[in-house]
Amino acid sequence: MNAPSLTIASEKNSYPVFIQGGLRHECFSYIREALQKSVSSYMIMIDENVADLYLADLLASFPENIQPTVTKIASGEGSKSIEKFSQLLTEALEVPLDRQSVIIAVGGGVTGDLAGYVAASYMRGIRFIQMPTTLLAHDSSVGGKTGINHPLGKNLIGAFHAPSAVLYDSDMLRTLPETEWRSGFAEVVKHGFIKDTAFLEWLEKKVMSFSDIPSDILNEMLRRSIAVKAEIVQEDEKENGVRAFLNYGHTLGHALESELGYGKLTHGEAVAIGMAFAHKLSERVFHTTLPTKTHEIYMTKLGYQLSIPEGISAASLLQRMKLDKKAEHNRIRFVLLEEMGKPVLLPVEEQVVLDLLVSEGVNA
Amino acid sequence: MNAPSLTIASEKNSYPVFIQGGLRHECFSYIREALQKSVSSYMIMIDENVADLYLADLLASFPENIQPTVTKIASGEGSKSIEKFSQLLTEALEVPLDRQSVIIAVGGGVTGDLAGYVAASYMRGIRFIQMPTTLLAHDSSVGGKTGINHPLGKNLIGAFHAPSAVLYDSDMLRTLPETEWRSGFAEVVKHGFIKDTAFLEWLEKKVMSFSDIPSDILNEMLRRSIAVKAEIVQEDEKENGVRAFLNYGHTLGHALESELGYGKLTHGEAVAIGMAFAHKLSERVFHTTLPTKTHEIYMTKLGYQLSIPEGISAASLLQRMKLDKKAEHNRIRFVLLEEMGKPVLLPVEEQVVLDLLVSEGVNA
Repeated sequence: MNAPSLTIASEKNSYPVFIQGGLRHECFSYIREALQKSVSSYMIMIDENVADLYLADLLASFPENIQPTVTKIASGEGSKSIEKFSQLLTEALEVPLDRQSVIIAVGGGVTGDLAGYVAASYMRGIRFIQMPTTLLAHDSSVGGKTGINHPLGKNLIGAFHAPSAVLYDSDMLRTLPETEWRSGFAEVVKHGFIKDTAFLEWLEKKVMSFSDIPSDILNEMLRRSIAVKAEIVQEDEKENGVRAFLNYGHTLGHALESELGYGKLTHGEAVAIGMAFAHKLSERVFHTTLPTKTHEIYMTKLGYQLSIPEGISAASLLQRMKLDKKAEHNRIRFVLLEEMGKPVLLPVEEQVVLDLLVSEGVNA
Repeated sequence: MNAPSLTIASEKNSYPVFIQGGLRHECFSYIREALQKSVSSYMIMIDENVADLYLADLLASFPENIQPTVTKIASGEGSKSIEKFSQLLTEALEVPLDRQSVIIAVGGGVTGDLAGYVAASYMRGIRFIQMPTTLLAHDSSVGGKTGINHPLGKNLIGAFHAPSAVLYDSDMLRTLPETEWRSGFAEVVKHGFIKDTAFLEWLEKKVMSFSDIPSDILNEMLRRSIAVKAEIVQEDEKENGVRAFLNYGHTLGHALESELGYGKLTHGEAVAIGMAFAHKLSERVFHTTLPTKTHEIYMTKLGYQLSIPEGISAASLLQRMKLDKKAEHNRIRFVLLEEMGKPVLLPVEEQVVLDLLVSEGVNA
């Protein structure tokens, strides 16, 4: 119980984020510490793969007479469906959870989004704890967005519902495959670009590969990355202004993901390409110079592939980008960097985007 | 556009309630007036029976180039299902609605709860307008509760999502059958009991039957009843304290509804019996005298049946009341009147409740 914590101010309450290796062994103590009002019962909703590795540790941290109910969630976006949402609500009612119960979401973004949305909807909202187990989820676990997918699009059904606490056992990240690290690390880098250039420089010095990050560096990296996210969502919880900056690299990133079919590129790999592109687009739009080359070298060393995959046409990417949630009146809007750490949201002429795509080797 | 309005302060915004006969003909103007930010498109979700009577009027109030999409909702609790919820979300996505779209819920409590929950969940929340068309919905349309039922219980899935405005065309109430009037009027009376005794006295003078209430009296009645509800939910939007007082008469009322099977008694008829009971229970617990008899005579004149229906055992009612959401540690808690207009929420010994049930003619 001595993990350093960060406090995130949400619209109504504020909640702590605890980051430490091995924290899962004290899971119950941290939850008790974080929850203000009394708890009648706990229900753990856990990614099935994570359960194999860590569920026993989590349960062991609870007193014998306060054992949580457990339900498992299949890995993958397929779980973020209205059917699974409905099933989890039914399971919660069968326990039954009441208004003083707490849901603990243990897993990556899929688990957090889904279980968080169940918590948001159960009896019009009960408390929940985020326990992210991937690097990418350091981003999604903070900010209060919960939700599920619709066959017509991702994250179209949901609620803003802030967790009561985020517990991050950084040791759990050790078992992640390299591709998962890359998926999450792009968002870490993004936070540097849009708000904390010093952090970006620190990263370039301290994180040279994903296989051997010392614990203190890993925890510090998580803390600083979450701190940027927190600052932005505190300012704009419901996404009307500065929160859009978190979409740096995501306009092209999302277009690539959906054009290739989800799962071909990880989210972070797509965002990394999108950031490299936004970088160059920023230079063109603002007639300025950014440390584009340095950044490319760094990312490439970490295994990122920054060029736009072959076989995609510029026309199809433009079409996708017009469907972006930031688009207005059919005009593509990009988050660009006026300078390092200074993002702006701006409509960009289609021709300018097209020109850059073509000069990046994409077929018109 | 000259309907008097009441303003309800919600957690984040405040919203107006307009009450006037014939208001549906100016529906679009009132909505425009109430909405602060620009609107990209409108979708009307309307009770199918109401649509037969009034949809044409509503649509006629919209300019030709701003016609809303319309979808109909079958009358009855059956529509408050996760399947219907999902279907409406799909329809909204097919239009598609975007974040600047507005949903207009036109109907009774079922329509308002369901369409409100769709609005709460669509892209994590878009704006919606409540247009109640029953007397009972004067109550549910204010306060921000939205939601659907689960096979295991009513209103177990939902969200707090305040409307952007409530438009009440009191002329629409004229076509309601007497039983619907009784169902809604019990909540009107309840508001008098718990917060506005002068209103209760006014009612007893002005509303002697449901068939011939003059428009000005009807509008005044709605306004004062909504004002009580508004005062209470403003103080306690998320139901932790005084909002419980709105449950006056509901502990036994809900038990009767579920014991008899929903639909045997209307909600208001059940609440009326519950209020008469809570009245007497208050007298016993506080050793005081309330105008019980006067009230009974008044309600009976309006067609209410205040005795507990035959064939129900006290034991089964007690069991149901222990499942009430207000119950704690298996103890029944009642909203009682210390004096007129002064409600308190109190645990009551089972024996005291049983004694009164038996003295009211219920078999032990």
